[in-house]
Amino acid sequence: MGNAKRPGEFELIRRYFAPLAAATPAALGLGDDAAILTPRPGQELVVTTDALVASVHFLPDDPPDQIARKMLRENLSDLAAKGAAPIGYLMSCAFDHTVDEAWIVAFCAGLAADQAEFGVGLLGGDTVGTPGPLTLTVTALGEVPAGRAMRRNAAKADDLVFVSGTLGDSALGLKRLRGGLLALSSEEGAFLIDRYRLPQPRLRLGRALMESGLAKAALDVSDGLIADLGHIGEQSDLAAEVERTRLPLSPAGAHALDEDPALIEDIVAGGEDYELLFTASAAAQAAIAALAERLGLRVTPIGRMMPSSGQPGAVRLLDEKGREIALKRRGWQHF
Amino acid sequence: MGNAKRPGEFELIRRYFAPLAAATPAALGLGDDAAILTPRPGQELVVTTDALVASVHFLPDDPPDQIARKMLRENLSDLAAKGAAPIGYLMSCAFDHTVDEAWIVAFCAGLAADQAEFGVGLLGGDTVGTPGPLTLTVTALGEVPAGRAMRRNAAKADDLVFVSGTLGDSALGLKRLRGGLLALSSEEGAFLIDRYRLPQPRLRLGRALMESGLAKAALDVSDGLIADLGHIGEQSDLAAEVERTRLPLSPAGAHALDEDPALIEDIVAGGEDYELLFTASAAAQAAIAALAERLGLRVTPIGRMMPSSGQPGAVRLLDEKGREIALKRRGWQHF
Repeated sequence: MGNAKRPGEFELIRRYFAPLAAATPAALGLGDDAAILTPRPGQELVVTTDALVASVHFLPDDPPDQIARKMLRENLSDLAAKGAAPIGYLMSCAFDHTVDEAWIVAFCAGLAADQAEFGVGLLGGDTVGTPGPLTLTVTALGEVPAGRAMRRNAAKADDLVFVSGTLGDSALGLKRLRGGLLALSSEEGAFLIDRYRLPQPRLRLGRALMESGLAKAALDVSDGLIADLGHIGEQSDLAAEVERTRLPLSPAGAHALDEDPALIEDIVAGGEDYELLFTASAAAQAAIAALAERLGLRVTPIGRMMPSSGQPGAVRLLDEKGREIALKRRGWQHF
Repeated sequence: MGNAKRPGEFELIRRYFAPLAAATPAALGLGDDAAILTPRPGQELVVTTDALVASVHFLPDDPPDQIARKMLRENLSDLAAKGAAPIGYLMSCAFDHTVDEAWIVAFCAGLAADQAEFGVGLLGGDTVGTPGPLTLTVTALGEVPAGRAMRRNAAKADDLVFVSGTLGDSALGLKRLRGGLLALSSEEGAFLIDRYRLPQPRLRLGRALMESGLAKAALDVSDGLIADLGHIGEQSDLAAEVERTRLPLSPAGAHALDEDPALIEDIVAGGEDYELLFTASAAAQAAIAALAERLGLRVTPIGRMMPSSGQPGAVRLLDEKGREIALKRRGWQHF
């Protein structure tokens, strides 16, 4: 796998990856076979992993610093959904021939920026060559007080369904990047593309929901609203209803939907929103609104959980007259 | 990424991966975003990750159950080098078009067999499609009493260097698989190929070395003897010497080397031995021999650590007259 355009593995580690681990004693300077973590008393460890493949999960010509940050943030979003505080991450990189030293410099700069922003460090990893597409895998670790992690399976019938931020921006941003949504202004397009490239893991919200006990079930919207609410339903043996008019949209998202009502599919099933989706009792609604205001983050009730009636995981999207909107797909297809 | 030959991701998880996690409560049935581990008091967590790419780290037509077992064992070998007891693993699979349902069935059967053999469970993972080669990443977790994990940086000058098992079998097995080493019998070839496909992580030896405190520095030989002993040297600021006549060889390995003395390069620099390489004081030699006998595992002193003399990580291979044997390479090249 010789590649004259970049240094060998050990030089790469010394020059670019070891500085990302310098502030993290558990990483042993990346000079060892493994990281060694000392869990804090009373804390449980939350561990999650995600793989990203060029042309499947990001565009090969996406800026490398944004690929790095998106990769890290997707995993931080999983920790946010559990109410966990992030500790660090291991990263496995299969570099293809397109990855040269300049790419790695930019990639590591993106990691460094987000490490500072989210208070995490590189714990370890592996770097290999691949004849195929660039493939990146992150395993993120976080901690949560024992027994307090939020789960998917804790929703109850009549819970309200809440979502943070706005939905659909990422899927619409990808459409714009691919040359679509021409009715939008360049500012609107840039906003959506930024939302596609740079998810905002809702760590503070997740932490506050865990600490307050306000949320019952929670997850982050990665596959798409309908599919992910379906996951809560499947795990909790419930069905759910969502009202289209309540879905929180950005101004750019609302403009796009005005121009083309068929984009509702992208908004509810496009995926990669990385917003928190959670259920809570109706009695908690005022406290959740106060929490959202304190965090300066939009949190919107969009529907409710219902008995499964033999169809656990069923999710109906209703129009303003309460009629079901037919959807061709529920979410991102992994294969 | 549609693929008619295999079920979708969620069906794959339900049918094949969830059973691998059934005995591991921390995996939350693979129905959640993350695994939740409760560390035992007084234990530190050891975390390691490795990526494998088809055609780079294994042959695309290697039996899928053996690919699975080798992937898992490589990570268990990293835990063994730390003296850690394995807990479980997360697995990220980027499946290409060659992966059909029969392949996945065999792959999971291999995982199930090794889970039973080594007492580990699947904790979580991610499954994606890739247009490129099949790429597999495992993150393994283990535990070790706080402060007791073996490290690479703890060797001392005049320590003896020990290695478990025999060296070079895996690299020679790969050569045989590729049509080489025709002077060997089919039994000898089959032995070497098995050593290539199915590493034996030395968990009991690693655990015993950690508990007894007999070893100073330790790691597992994955890049090759010379490169990995160099890693101990670099991390410990030492150099090392190894005597060729002391290298432990299997009968098949010794026969191959008799036929072609140039194979010494493959034996000391071919990599993928997954034997433990460690240093210990000369005073510990008898106790190490007794430990090896108790475990029924060959453990051989092959050389010694020396002051670095300005070349930390330098490793010299000496012939029977004490002359240095020139080597074209030190170990597996990752790029």
